Amino acid sequence: MSIQAARAPSPQSPILLRETIGSIAIITLNRPAARNSLTEAMIAGLHAELNEIRDDKDVRGVVIAANGPAFSAGHDMKELTAHRTDPDRGRAYFAQLMNACSAMMQAVVLLPKPVVAAVQGIATAAGCQLVASCDLAVASEAASFATPGVDIGLFCSTPMVALSRNVPRKQAMEMLLTGEPVPAERAREIGLVNRVVPAGTELAAALELAQQVALKSAYTVKLGKEAFYRQVEMNLADAYRYAAEVMTENMMARDAEEGIGAFIEKREPKWEDK
Amino acid sequence: MSIQAARAPSPQSPILLRETIGSIAIITLNRPAARNSLTEAMIAGLHAELNEIRDDKDVRGVVIAANGPAFSAGHDMKELTAHRTDPDRGRAYFAQLMNACSAMMQAVVLLPKPVVAAVQGIATAAGCQLVASCDLAVASEAASFATPGVDIGLFCSTPMVALSRNVPRKQAMEMLLTGEPVPAERAREIGLVNRVVPAGTELAAALELAQQVALKSAYTVKLGKEAFYRQVEMNLADAYRYAAEVMTENMMARDAEEGIGAFIEKREPKWEDK
Amino acid sequence: MSIQAARAPSPQSPILLRETIGSIAIITLNRPAARNSLTEAMIAGLHAELNEIRDDKDVRGVVIAANGPAFSAGHDMKELTAHRTDPDRGRAYFAQLMNACSAMMQAVVLLPKPVVAAVQGIATAAGCQLVASCDLAVASEAASFATPGVDIGLFCSTPMVALSRNVPRKQAMEMLLTGEPVPAERAREIGLVNRVVPAGTELAAALELAQQVALKSAYTVKLGKEAFYRQVEMNLADAYRYAAEVMTENMMARDAEEGIGAFIEKREPKWEDK
Repeated sequence: MSIQAARAPSPQSPILLRETIGSIAIITLNRPAARNSLTEAMIAGLHAELNEIRDDKDVRGVVIAANGPAFSAGHDMKELTAHRTDPDRGRAYFAQLMNACSAMMQAVVLLPKPVVAAVQGIATAAGCQLVASCDLAVASEAASFATPGVDIGLFCSTPMVALSRNVPRKQAMEMLLTGEPVPAERAREIGLVNRVVPAGTELAAALELAQQVALKSAYTVKLGKEAFYRQVEMNLADAYRYAAEVMTENMMARDAEEGIGAFIEKREPKWEDK
Repeated sequence: MSIQAARAPSPQSPILLRETIGSIAIITLNRPAARNSLTEAMIAGLHAELNEIRDDKDVRGVVIAANGPAFSAGHDMKELTAHRTDPDRGRAYFAQLMNACSAMMQAVVLLPKPVVAAVQGIATAAGCQLVASCDLAVASEAASFATPGVDIGLFCSTPMVALSRNVPRKQAMEMLLTGEPVPAERAREIGLVNRVVPAGTELAAALELAQQVALKSAYTVKLGKEAFYRQVEMNLADAYRYAAEVMTENMMARDAEEGIGAFIEKREPKWEDK
Repeated sequence: MSIQAARAPSPQSPILLRETIGSIAIITLNRPAARNSLTEAMIAGLHAELNEIRDDKDVRGVVIAANGPAFSAGHDMKELTAHRTDPDRGRAYFAQLMNACSAMMQAVVLLPKPVVAAVQGIATAAGCQLVASCDLAVASEAASFATPGVDIGLFCSTPMVALSRNVPRKQAMEMLLTGEPVPAERAREIGLVNRVVPAGTELAAALELAQQVALKSAYTVKLGKEAFYRQVEMNLADAYRYAAEVMTENMMARDAEEGIGAFIEKREPKWEDK
């Protein structure tokens, strides 16, 4: 893959790479030797990238990818352990780190642009959570997914927030209680990823999927993504009341007028801000 | 299919057909040339049929079917667009239409009788929502499902209320963000339909399914359907408290006494109102 | 199976058997001639066993199994019917029984140890609910699942509380409205069981699964299981706030310190209380 080749890491590489292909920002976790663990710096870096992308009108979609054999191994256990010598044995640090990580995961959900994971290897713990937090996910047939915190005495409690909102209850529980890896194809069956593709093509496939969404009206995608995650937490009557309001707002917008007009006139729509 | 043949549309056909086979009402969307779009009149007609059926003791189940190549293409874009010339550019009309449509969809859920969709062709946007709103759905192997509003700048926000309560999160998001059609068999895998049958047999299969449920106690089905949609929105403790009350009420009813008696005596039960 | 052989019922058998293999308690429903129906005594017995197990530090996991051709046929209709002659026609008795049964099912969910169902035959109504209430479930390929209350005028309203939290909406509705049995493999597809194994090996497979989880830190499993069922009922922001607190508490615990230390030092962890 030429895209992969162009992004091969060097010893001086930053922990995150960002490149733009068309209107898609590709964020690449780039500490392959550390299995792309979500260190404090990695979490802060990802959150900062997401904030920049949120405000960048030229970016209409995001792919989160990774270099090396692992997508992400989750938190960095050595970094966590180093804070055992704090006067409070690390409590304040752990709380701050978990909140920072949770805030970053929610920033993926709250980003008004589609986010697609491109999973080339194993995604574990908070790495699995990152995949689950994305709107869409493409996995290599060589990828796998696990929440193995239970094996080291640290239950994957924050990862399960995202996992259990993607995967049926017993299947999520099996991952959480056994810690065993789930192969890509099984991950697709239980709802954790959208598509499984031949190894080495996952980035191209994720990019293609992001580009497909990026061809739509950015306003419409933003409105719809936000409404999706809000309505899903409501009861049916409230969800309909809210969604009917969103539809009305959407109808009044320039891009709906243009899109519906183009549809009726059988021509291509021209979206705003493009 | 003789049933289909008997219901072939003519130029003078009303937009909705209703016939009764045994205790099952079949409502057929009958504007095939307009791909059975859910115009204001179609929505009102469907809602009126549902209200009539609710109060008709002879009807014990409903099949919603459609004539022509499409099940339903969702809202009628020309009808919507015509209101752009209203003084408020259509806002009041759009709001009223979305509320009317949402109310009709909720009437399917609130109907105290089982509703089965028989999907012979493509069901898109509010057409897909109508399928998702039914209790059960049978699809032809030629059917497909999509929420393509995003392609015309109008996100399928109300359809997603029903869709996201049937389909796992990432799979729903894929439909909503890409607008791409999902074939019948994949729709079954992700939970949107119950059964996929050979093309041309979906109405017979849906009818058979509705008839199977219609053989049960109407009281019991009514009680159970209502309880299902109420408890699913509660937390576990509240759901159990509520369901235990429902069970007790159910036990005190004549049909449970008869049904349990028949079970113990190994005979066929005789339900009330039948 | 030697385990099965050792547990063959005799006429004098108690309705529940309990044995311990390693750190796993196996509770076996043992009224095969009555299809292991959940009589008042059976429900009370199960609840009492769960309470004992909760407080027994030597038990680190539970398997719920059954003797005979059926796993459990749900409530005992003759026992229910006997109370029709009460002055209130049984109302108080039914309410008390439904509450007792719901409390027992919730005791499975609230037990701070993993509970695995080993389903060898048909599990119907409250028997199906018991499987759905377990954290994990292994089914024989000969097992099947049904909520057939609707056939006797008594909708499976309490079973559906557990069922609808395992299985997608339309698939749950199909089981509830038709009463038809779902074979093991289909039960796996819709999320009701984790694994399907050759007939006669389900108990060994469930035991192996329970033992696998029992090798983890009991503290961690307890913390994680409780957090799972609590967070799943919260909205995303609250769930993250809560789960981040749980992670911090978990990090401060002895077993996380030990587990992470062992991980870094590449040795086996030694859990507390083991």
